[in-house]
Amino acid sequence: MKHVHYTDVELETPTEEGVKDTKVRWLISKKDGAENFAMRVFEIQPGGNTPLHQHDWEHEVFVLQGEGVARSETDEECFKEGDIFFVKPMEWHQFVNTGKETLKIICLIPYK
Amino acid sequence: MKHVHYTDVELETPTEEGVKDTKVRWLISKKDGAENFAMRVFEIQPGGNTPLHQHDWEHEVFVLQGEGVARSETDEECFKEGDIFFVKPMEWHQFVNTGKETLKIICLIPYK
Repeated sequence: MKHVHYTDVELETPTEEGVKDTKVRWLISKKDGAENFAMRVFEIQPGGNTPLHQHDWEHEVFVLQGEGVARSETDEECFKEGDIFFVKPMEWHQFVNTGKETLKIICLIPYK
Repeated sequence: MKHVHYTDVELETPTEEGVKDTKVRWLISKKDGAENFAMRVFEIQPGGNTPLHQHDWEHEVFVLQGEGVARSETDEECFKEGDIFFVKPMEWHQFVNTGKETLKIICLIPYK
């Protein structure tokens, strides 16, 4: 079985439009033989954010460290360490770091 | 989107043979509309363990808190907070809490 510390996985810069001060580690992916879903961790600096967007796949999110605001099309909710999110396909969503430390969120997506 | 703290999700007792001093929270599952994979957190007391077993689906694991030993058919590896595991289908595996605090591991499985 693959076994590493998450910080030993390469920290990459996402190229997607609308991303600000955010890096990503692909912890478990097709490279490891994962065929059904991938585990990433996003590391978002204070003031940074993921894009406000929608897509036809879901997210399963666990907030590992930090705090922020989750935006949907019509709503904003504060969140903190230990919170989880299930973002359904086609739901608008954005995660913003409104805290003083790096926000780290585990985010899983399906392969299909 | 579903948004709760993970400790607000019911703590259940797994019924599987070989489980010792372990509880589970189904954080995101079919009940929430998740069709591709489920997110659970296992909370294992000191001295407790998940079963030593194998099955035809994979695990994606993130160690949230604590420390322990991961057993495979032939090997034992110590692990700690922040470690990740990818357990391939049919790999033997067991997680044992060898520490002094509750071991908490996030463990995802596919629906198929």
